[in-house]
Amino acid sequence: MAGLSEAEIIQCLTAGYPQRPDVRLGVGDDGAVLVPPSGKHLVSVADTINEQVHFPQGIPASAVAHRSLAVNLSDLAAMGARPAWASLALSLPAADAAWLADFAAGFRDLALVNDVALVGGDTVCGPLSVSVHLTGFVDPDEFLTRSGAAPGDLVVVSGTPGAAAAGLSLLDDVRPVSLPLRQAFLWPTPRVELGLGLHGFATAAIDVSDGLMIDLQRIADCGQLGASIDLEQLPLSAAAIETLGEEAALALALGGGDDYELCFTVPDASASRDTLAALAARCGCALTVIGVITDAAGIDLHRNHKPATVFGLKRWTHFNQDPI
Amino acid sequence: MAGLSEAEIIQCLTAGYPQRPDVRLGVGDDGAVLVPPSGKHLVSVADTINEQVHFPQGIPASAVAHRSLAVNLSDLAAMGARPAWASLALSLPAADAAWLADFAAGFRDLALVNDVALVGGDTVCGPLSVSVHLTGFVDPDEFLTRSGAAPGDLVVVSGTPGAAAAGLSLLDDVRPVSLPLRQAFLWPTPRVELGLGLHGFATAAIDVSDGLMIDLQRIADCGQLGASIDLEQLPLSAAAIETLGEEAALALALGGGDDYELCFTVPDASASRDTLAALAARCGCALTVIGVITDAAGIDLHRNHKPATVFGLKRWTHFNQDPI
Repeated sequence: MAGLSEAEIIQCLTAGYPQRPDVRLGVGDDGAVLVPPSGKHLVSVADTINEQVHFPQGIPASAVAHRSLAVNLSDLAAMGARPAWASLALSLPAADAAWLADFAAGFRDLALVNDVALVGGDTVCGPLSVSVHLTGFVDPDEFLTRSGAAPGDLVVVSGTPGAAAAGLSLLDDVRPVSLPLRQAFLWPTPRVELGLGLHGFATAAIDVSDGLMIDLQRIADCGQLGASIDLEQLPLSAAAIETLGEEAALALALGGGDDYELCFTVPDASASRDTLAALAARCGCALTVIGVITDAAGIDLHRNHKPATVFGLKRWTHFNQDPI
Repeated sequence: MAGLSEAEIIQCLTAGYPQRPDVRLGVGDDGAVLVPPSGKHLVSVADTINEQVHFPQGIPASAVAHRSLAVNLSDLAAMGARPAWASLALSLPAADAAWLADFAAGFRDLALVNDVALVGGDTVCGPLSVSVHLTGFVDPDEFLTRSGAAPGDLVVVSGTPGAAAAGLSLLDDVRPVSLPLRQAFLWPTPRVELGLGLHGFATAAIDVSDGLMIDLQRIADCGQLGASIDLEQLPLSAAAIETLGEEAALALALGGGDDYELCFTVPDASASRDTLAALAARCGCALTVIGVITDAAGIDLHRNHKPATVFGLKRWTHFNQDPI
C-alpha cells in the first residue's frame, strides 16, 4: 500500500471544493472561520458510521464517504434545513492513496450536489470510522421537529422504505434485478429538497434511519400518541418483492433501517393530497399516505380494515443488553 | 457489566447541563437549532481521539472525556474564540453504566467551566473513539491564525511544554514527584482565557498539540520564515527535570506532544513584555519568551549564543510511511 503523510491526506480530502462566500477561513488553521447568515438559525447534526457496525467491510470507499455525509444530510432534511458546512473526522487503519482518493471523490460528489463546503476535520489512525458534523440554515420559525403531530394527521413516507435493508441482504447478489436494491443501500439519496419543501405543511418529520416503525413511533411518542398503518398502502420496492417475496419485503419496509427516507405528518385536509402530489413531482420521489396519527399509544397495523401481523418484523437498535 | 439502552446512554451523557439561551432546540430531535450571535463569526473545530492512539487503555473515563473536549477547546483558544456549542460522537465497545457515568462527568465538568452546551451527537458501537465538534464565537476582525508572524517577532509559549509527554511516560509511576506530570497528561488545561486575551496583540498563534518544534514550524511555514529558540529560556517542568533529567526534559519540551499550551508571536516592542506579564497574571499561567522569528527557514536551536543540539529529540506524527 502506498503510504501518505497527514498533509497529503488532507490535500486529497479537501481538493476540488468551490469556495463558499460564507467561509472566511477554511481548512488549514486550528479552526475554520464561518459567517452565519443574517436572520437565520443554525441546525447542527452529527453522525458517526463504523465499519462492520453501519456498513460491511469491503464496500467501495466512495460509498463509505457518501454514506457518512448522506446520513447527516438526511438529519438536516428532517429538520427542513439547507446544508452548508461539513466537518469530517476520519479514522483510518492505514493511509492508502487509492482508497483515499475514492473516498474523497465520494464525499465531494455528494457535497457539491448539496452546495456543502468541507471546512475542517481531523484524520487519525484507528479502525475505519467516519464522523461527520454538518451545519445547515433555517428561518427562525420554519424548522421541522419530531413533535407537532395531532390525532387525525396523515402519515406520509417518501420513496420505498425497506429497499436499503433488502439491498444489504443482497450485497453479494449479482443479478440485475437486485441492482436497484444494492444501490439503495450503497448510495442512499437524502431527501434535502423534500425537507425544504415541508415548511408550513408538515406538522412533524423524522428521517427513516432505524426503520419506519421505530422512527414513526418516535414522532408518536412526542405527543403521547399512536399511529395506524394501512399495510395495503405501504409502498414496497418491486425489486424487493421480486427477489425476497412480498411478506419479507413488507417486513423490511416496516423494520429495516438505512433508507434515509422522510416520514412526516400533514393535516387531513383536502388540499394536503394536492400539495403532496406537487411536492412529489418537484422532488422526484414518491410520497405515499400510509396511515393516520391516533390518540391510542402504539403503532397499529391493519390490512383490509382488519388487524394484521407481519411475519419476520424486527426492530433494529444500536445498543442492546447483549454485549456486542 | 451493566448494559444500557441507547436512550439511557443519551440521558446519562446529556444530564446536568444548564440551558444556554442561544440553544433553541437541544438534544432529542434529528438536530439542534442554534441562534448565532448577531455580528459575530463562528469558529468551527473538530478533533477525534482514539484509544491506544491518542491515549492508553485503562485511563479513567473522565480523563478520556476531558481530553476529547480539551483538545477542541485548545483549538478554539488558538483561534481566540469563545467556546459555545459542543457535539459529541462516541464509539463504545460496550455500554457500561459506571464507565459512562464517569465519562459524562468528565465531559460535563470541563464544559461547565467553559460555558459550553452539549447540543447533540451520536453514540455508536465500535472501538473506543471520541469525536468532538465545537463551535465558538469571534468578533469578525479579531480571530487569530497561524499566519501573520514577521521576522523579529518574539516567540512566546505558555506553561511548561513537555510536562504532558513526561507524564505519559510516567503513567505507571506512583511517586508523588511525578504526580503533576501525570496530571498534565491526563487533565490538560486548554488556554481559553489566554486565547481570548491575545486579540490585537499576538501576530500568530497555534496550540501545542504535536510538539513545540513542529507546531512553531507551522507558524513559521505560513510566512516562509524560521525561528531561533534560546534553550536557556525554555521553561522546563521542575518535576520533569527531577524525574527524567534535564536533557530528557528539554527533549520532551521541544518534541513531546499533548501539552495543549499556546505558542504565539508578538511584536518585539517594549510594551510587549508588560502586556505578557499582565496576561500571565490574569490567566494564571506562565508566559515565556523563548526566541524570535527569523527570515531563514527552519528552527534554529542555540544555547549561550552557540548552536545547540538536543539529544533524544523526536518529532511526533499521526501517520508515517510505516504501516501502523
